Amino acid sequence: MKIYKKAILPNGFMANGVASGIKKTGKLDLALFYSEVRAKAACGFTTNKIQAAPIKLNKRYLKDNKHFQAIIANSGNANCFNGKFGLKDAEETAKELSKNLKIDKQAILVASTGIIGRRLPLLKIKHAIPKLVKGLSKEGIRQAKKAIMTTDTFNKEITLEFKIKNQIATICGIAKGSGMIAPNMATMLCFIFTDASITKEALNKALKIAVDKSFNCITVDGCMSTNDSVILLANGSCGNDTIDTNKHFGLFLGALSRACLELARMIVKDGEGASKFIKIKVQKAKSFSEAKTIALNIANSNLFKTAIYGENPNFGRIVAGVGASGINVQEKDLKVKVSPLNKKEINVDVSINRGNASAIVYTSDLTPEYVKINAGYN
Amino acid sequence: MKIYKKAILPNGFMANGVASGIKKTGKLDLALFYSEVRAKAACGFTTNKIQAAPIKLNKRYLKDNKHFQAIIANSGNANCFNGKFGLKDAEETAKELSKNLKIDKQAILVASTGIIGRRLPLLKIKHAIPKLVKGLSKEGIRQAKKAIMTTDTFNKEITLEFKIKNQIATICGIAKGSGMIAPNMATMLCFIFTDASITKEALNKALKIAVDKSFNCITVDGCMSTNDSVILLANGSCGNDTIDTNKHFGLFLGALSRACLELARMIVKDGEGASKFIKIKVQKAKSFSEAKTIALNIANSNLFKTAIYGENPNFGRIVAGVGASGINVQEKDLKVKVSPLNKKEINVDVSINRGNASAIVYTSDLTPEYVKINAGYN
Repeated sequence: MKIYKKAILPNGFMANGVASGIKKTGKLDLALFYSEVRAKAACGFTTNKIQAAPIKLNKRYLKDNKHFQAIIANSGNANCFNGKFGLKDAEETAKELSKNLKIDKQAILVASTGIIGRRLPLLKIKHAIPKLVKGLSKEGIRQAKKAIMTTDTFNKEITLEFKIKNQIATICGIAKGSGMIAPNMATMLCFIFTDASITKEALNKALKIAVDKSFNCITVDGCMSTNDSVILLANGSCGNDTIDTNKHFGLFLGALSRACLELARMIVKDGEGASKFIKIKVQKAKSFSEAKTIALNIANSNLFKTAIYGENPNFGRIVAGVGASGINVQEKDLKVKVSPLNKKEINVDVSINRGNASAIVYTSDLTPEYVKINAGYN
Repeated sequence: MKIYKKAILPNGFMANGVASGIKKTGKLDLALFYSEVRAKAACGFTTNKIQAAPIKLNKRYLKDNKHFQAIIANSGNANCFNGKFGLKDAEETAKELSKNLKIDKQAILVASTGIIGRRLPLLKIKHAIPKLVKGLSKEGIRQAKKAIMTTDTFNKEITLEFKIKNQIATICGIAKGSGMIAPNMATMLCFIFTDASITKEALNKALKIAVDKSFNCITVDGCMSTNDSVILLANGSCGNDTIDTNKHFGLFLGALSRACLELARMIVKDGEGASKFIKIKVQKAKSFSEAKTIALNIANSNLFKTAIYGENPNFGRIVAGVGASGINVQEKDLKVKVSPLNKKEINVDVSINRGNASAIVYTSDLTPEYVKINAGYN
């Protein structure tokens, strides 16, 4: 497996990014990802009960439709909590794009990130779409990855190549998040593209597993966004022997998992105000889910996060976090180990003597800078 | 009902507080509360799965025993995560006190707050007990309430008088919390004393209801301590017509609820680094529990708390908090109102159009000061 720390689109994919005027700064804010041939899609969305309009639209299209060719994503506006107008605006965006791309509107997925509760500036978007489409190219990923950023301080991107028999397949992923600097700037977005040929069932299964151990194992502040989305498109352009859940599946899952994990780690490293990158491993649990619950409880404890920031070797706060998880850990079975705190990367190892499962969660520390950033006066 | 904003012990109760040397600063750190006659007890403890030794001991004594006469509480050491030694030390403390008070050791309840994972300095405590007992008096509550403080910036105390037929009964409560300044300084402790005569069943029922709407409705940082305890003693000294669940119950519950709520509000007002006191009311829920879940989800959102600190009218973060609660609130049913943010006290009103139940939760904002305090370098 070859790994590149930048986004290189697989065969048959193109992208572009433009400044449509959603962001008042004039920065890039509208991205388009396009597959020349029809692609299969697998998606993961936030479990927040209040969901942004693009997620509602995607769910409808994913139900009715089997093939997709494009993703349009904007930054600067979350298109969330806009009532019936939100869904209408998202659909209008897809419709306008479908005319320009000459594809069915139901073959388009949409994503938004930014302010909650403001209408999408539809006219600006409609105006920008022809230019967006016209500029599509393989190199356009450079503009596209910038156009999905809000307060990110660096691009999150990765490309992996792996062999299926004699064919080289590629997985390329980009992500934004979880900078929440300006009011309501939330959301993690991730778009992944592969030219591997794979069944719909295998694609869904692989994404679920990969997300569960990557994007669902990171937390910056425990706040769940209304817009979080992971969208994976597979267009089969590499011409490989088709992957299914019994054939070459491990190979594909390994590459996809690696891509997701690397992007997830980048998101944590770019957490607002973060001064430390923290890896929490919980071992000897009864199940992965139990281990993860405990790890997330520690990771989301403000007392733990401030202790790490203050370089205070404060294992009592880890102990309290374990107990607060609701998992019935016995005091005598609990072992806690923390690596030296004067480093940038911190390892917390917890062992609970209940079984053989383990989980790893990534988080950042809680700093005065986080508060200042999110109070909105930086 | 008469309310006094200070602790005045009811008939038959005495207290005292001394400096035993647990705190290296020489401040008061050991408190004793004593009833001249046998009292009934009702208790509420943390639901953290890792529980401090004093809680384990109390649970055992409460199971075996019907009457109690004393509470001994120390600050500066949580006696938590000390393995079998913790329970032994707590029991030794009760034993030593029982000799000095000439009562059964099982008539004693214990409480601790402070550092997690350090042995209780048993010799110092044993040495201080005779002096502690000798100095017992009604006025000793002044020393006692200081001896349970850790990083509290003011005393939390209240006294209520109410009439049962022709008798005046008194409820007096003191509390500490939730300052978590030095590493592992956690815990909310609350001791309530009444001279009302009341059945055990009614006492338990009243405390459960009162705690559920007061101490269980506050959050400073969402971190659950290993030591949280509410202990209520009723010694019957006022000679009233005995309260049971059918007779005078509403009267007693009203007074107890008021005492608990006032103490709970004081704890939030003394939250570390807090600059705002926030009241979150969720209305039109299906049940109290549903309303409370939503209110706590908002209250524990770092993004919401930093927005309030920054005086940023940021209703998207409230919307996201509602959705993250897991309660299936429809976007169209959700109404959010926030009072002006440039005040010290903030009201957040949320309505979800699902039923007729409501809940109120109190919290504070998240400030850079909180982070600095808990990072341990203030």
